[in-house]
Amino acid sequence: MKITKDLYQSSLALLTDFYQLTMAYGYWKSGKADQEAVFNLFFRKHPFQGGFTMAAGLEYLIDYCENFNFEDEDLAYLASMKRKDGSPMFEPDFLKYLSEMKFTCDIDAVEEGTVVFPNTPLVRVRGPLFQCQLLETPLLNIINFQTLIATKAARINLATLGEPIMEFGLRRAQGIDGALAASRAAYIGGCTSTSNVLAGKLFGIPVSGTHAHSWIMSFETELEAFEAYAEAFPDNCIFLVDTYDTLNGVKNAIKVGQILRSKGKEMLGIRIDSGDLAYFSNKAREMLDEAGFPDAKIVGSNDLDEHIISSLKSQEASINVWGVGTKLVTAFDQPALGAVYKLSAIKSETGTWEPKIKLSQQSIKINIPGIHNVKRYYSNGKAVADMIYLENQVIDSKSTMIIDPMDPTHRKRLMPAFYKEEILLKTIFKAGKNVYQIPTLDQIRDRGIAQLESFDKTHKRLVNPHIYPVGLEENLHHLRMDLVLKAKKLDNGLE
Amino acid sequence: MKITKDLYQSSLALLTDFYQLTMAYGYWKSGKADQEAVFNLFFRKHPFQGGFTMAAGLEYLIDYCENFNFEDEDLAYLASMKRKDGSPMFEPDFLKYLSEMKFTCDIDAVEEGTVVFPNTPLVRVRGPLFQCQLLETPLLNIINFQTLIATKAARINLATLGEPIMEFGLRRAQGIDGALAASRAAYIGGCTSTSNVLAGKLFGIPVSGTHAHSWIMSFETELEAFEAYAEAFPDNCIFLVDTYDTLNGVKNAIKVGQILRSKGKEMLGIRIDSGDLAYFSNKAREMLDEAGFPDAKIVGSNDLDEHIISSLKSQEASINVWGVGTKLVTAFDQPALGAVYKLSAIKSETGTWEPKIKLSQQSIKINIPGIHNVKRYYSNGKAVADMIYLENQVIDSKSTMIIDPMDPTHRKRLMPAFYKEEILLKTIFKAGKNVYQIPTLDQIRDRGIAQLESFDKTHKRLVNPHIYPVGLEENLHHLRMDLVLKAKKLDNGLE
Repeated sequence: MKITKDLYQSSLALLTDFYQLTMAYGYWKSGKADQEAVFNLFFRKHPFQGGFTMAAGLEYLIDYCENFNFEDEDLAYLASMKRKDGSPMFEPDFLKYLSEMKFTCDIDAVEEGTVVFPNTPLVRVRGPLFQCQLLETPLLNIINFQTLIATKAARINLATLGEPIMEFGLRRAQGIDGALAASRAAYIGGCTSTSNVLAGKLFGIPVSGTHAHSWIMSFETELEAFEAYAEAFPDNCIFLVDTYDTLNGVKNAIKVGQILRSKGKEMLGIRIDSGDLAYFSNKAREMLDEAGFPDAKIVGSNDLDEHIISSLKSQEASINVWGVGTKLVTAFDQPALGAVYKLSAIKSETGTWEPKIKLSQQSIKINIPGIHNVKRYYSNGKAVADMIYLENQVIDSKSTMIIDPMDPTHRKRLMPAFYKEEILLKTIFKAGKNVYQIPTLDQIRDRGIAQLESFDKTHKRLVNPHIYPVGLEENLHHLRMDLVLKAKKLDNGLE
Repeated sequence: MKITKDLYQSSLALLTDFYQLTMAYGYWKSGKADQEAVFNLFFRKHPFQGGFTMAAGLEYLIDYCENFNFEDEDLAYLASMKRKDGSPMFEPDFLKYLSEMKFTCDIDAVEEGTVVFPNTPLVRVRGPLFQCQLLETPLLNIINFQTLIATKAARINLATLGEPIMEFGLRRAQGIDGALAASRAAYIGGCTSTSNVLAGKLFGIPVSGTHAHSWIMSFETELEAFEAYAEAFPDNCIFLVDTYDTLNGVKNAIKVGQILRSKGKEMLGIRIDSGDLAYFSNKAREMLDEAGFPDAKIVGSNDLDEHIISSLKSQEASINVWGVGTKLVTAFDQPALGAVYKLSAIKSETGTWEPKIKLSQQSIKINIPGIHNVKRYYSNGKAVADMIYLENQVIDSKSTMIIDPMDPTHRKRLMPAFYKEEILLKTIFKAGKNVYQIPTLDQIRDRGIAQLESFDKTHKRLVNPHIYPVGLEENLHHLRMDLVLKAKKLDNGLE
């Protein structure tokens, strides 16, 4: 499906930071607009103080790039922008240049559902400098958010030990697409269904839901409300029991469950949305069991996240199905991933690639130069380490060293000959042409679950996880060190 | 402008929770679909531990309601949904009923930019039960998020003491509309510009931006990069100085500033995006002043929020313009508002309005029944108190009591005759027809600033604010108490 094109009527070419356009203009003025460059999209730290991140958003990215061109209304808006002296912000010839732009980049990316780690590229863009630059903001917008939410959902799925998770965050999500993209990413991360009907229609995610407190309140009594609901949906009865008094609500649910059973139907269960979920779910379980409804499910909801769910699990709360909203779709405890997109190489006039470095007062902000890729090594089906390497580098299969980019004293020796390997960046666009077969959402979801299974459980611990080894191949490490020292010297040289 | 219609190609009728549709179906089955009801949208607690909230999102809401109808593709999707036994989820007659639905609700709402308080209605919807119900989720999605972001922006604006704020959160925002709606709400809350070009095009917000680190890195030296930028935009030079070494960057900016001046142009200033902003901004200020650039601005950015800005202010950092992104557009420290939408009255078959109450284990979750409105009283131009009252209640102008809905021992006597009053809920839709003149975004922004000025500064303190008095008019308080006790008794009676 074509997401941005189907959903958004407006051209999204201007969904970018203004400085991308001023830079594009500057490159064009300086004769550098078509100079070939390589940019990497990566993050520096796992979200939620966790030990892993799950990539998502690639399908949106593909759709964005396939529709990446400036329409007349975009150009008219840019033409209307003025400088301080009243002259046009952009020369007409530049706008003509934009209007003729064809997307011609190579894009390599990790597939959705892939487990990824700090400093490794999730997306690599290679192409004309001005195109790479214009794509920075929309690509970050798309990948940052969906990766964040897929990761949150995967953590929640770890906490429920695989029990079903209904996502119903639409009402608290950040905007319309903040909800839609979240429902999609949450499903990738392991949720079972969404309440968002439009997400069901657009993405094919199973939708679920029964009734709210207002349903109960619109009838004279709770019992009447349950009866009326059972009349309308005898197959889909999960009664919300906490509008007036939770345990009395359970009694009423049991009464209607008995009526349903007398008609050959079974109530699915009850939902508790307030109060002490551990206490009320266990009381409700006893009541349901005693009344002959041992198979009735108990859905728990009310500001749940992975930590509260873990706590409820450890208290042996009798919840079988988990309703999760706000804390999931806004990634409440860390609502932004913070991935960045950095120039790592540029082709000089002589046709050779120059690796590029950016210094910073904060050494965590120094990027990894060159054109690189990532190999994941597996031993007996379990991931051993990820290696970031220069793409044209031959790797010694007997023995090779990886070096932590943040701490060069932290090293690990690998024996690639003994491992199975997977190259993580796959070719998505070649010279602007999509060469990638987009998987279905269910295939992506399966990939995510399989990926997580290939990591030791200590890396998936929700708090204080064991750090998975990721490092630079030796030659890339040396290149980076040389460039840092050279840049610092060059800089001092300017004083 | 028509936001949802212009931006979104897809019908948004299904942008709702599935349970709204199952309930709508249930109402229809029970013959209650067209029963008249009143719902209120309100929040229970200010975000960010603050003392005020700024309403936003009404223009989106109006646009949503004006385009609220089910299109063929929506109905086809609903028709494709099945029950467990394979029969259709919804009867064809119900889908026909949906297809013929015309939006006929009355909507009253506070205007955008209005300062609002817990438990008071931001939006009141009155109309056929099933329409009110279907609107719950999209209205919450729209109002929750934009109100949250306008409030965050207003707090940041208080921290900068009115100095310009450039919003550039697009790359970290939650989805495409998460960015667009955030840029709009941030402008309402007091930001000066956005980096999001599409938000500029759609909403007319001023856009701003110059260049990124990648611009610098694409040239051999920083000096060359600054020179090339000055060549392209002699009028719009804010040089980003921290790609390699911040203070050396300032020296290079001064060199290019001198070149610009020799051509009759002035550099606007510099931007510092990393490192210790207090230290570097003061060093840079000294260097710029000494070099004869006392008017050059210093833009500070790097994960700023109202608290860091206040701290930089108290340290006398030399920053004149504030760049704010992630922490603003995601409302990082509290990324969801948590407003709810509750049934407060329903018209019985005899034509009388019945006020409705919802109990809860958590007393903060007990709603305010009836059809009410809010009066704000002003004395000498300063807001004194907000009163929630039954709309048909005559208020004693000599002396009237308001009672805190969360703590009935907390009361305040008001003398309305001595105050100026403002009724906060304005009529937006009357029987489905828009009767409201939508203000321009600049008018809304001005209203927000004027509203905040009418509150004592102690209510606007960023931490531990003085609580502004909001209470129920006495008769409404008694009605609520009676209904709570009656509902509790009714409930016990069922045992």
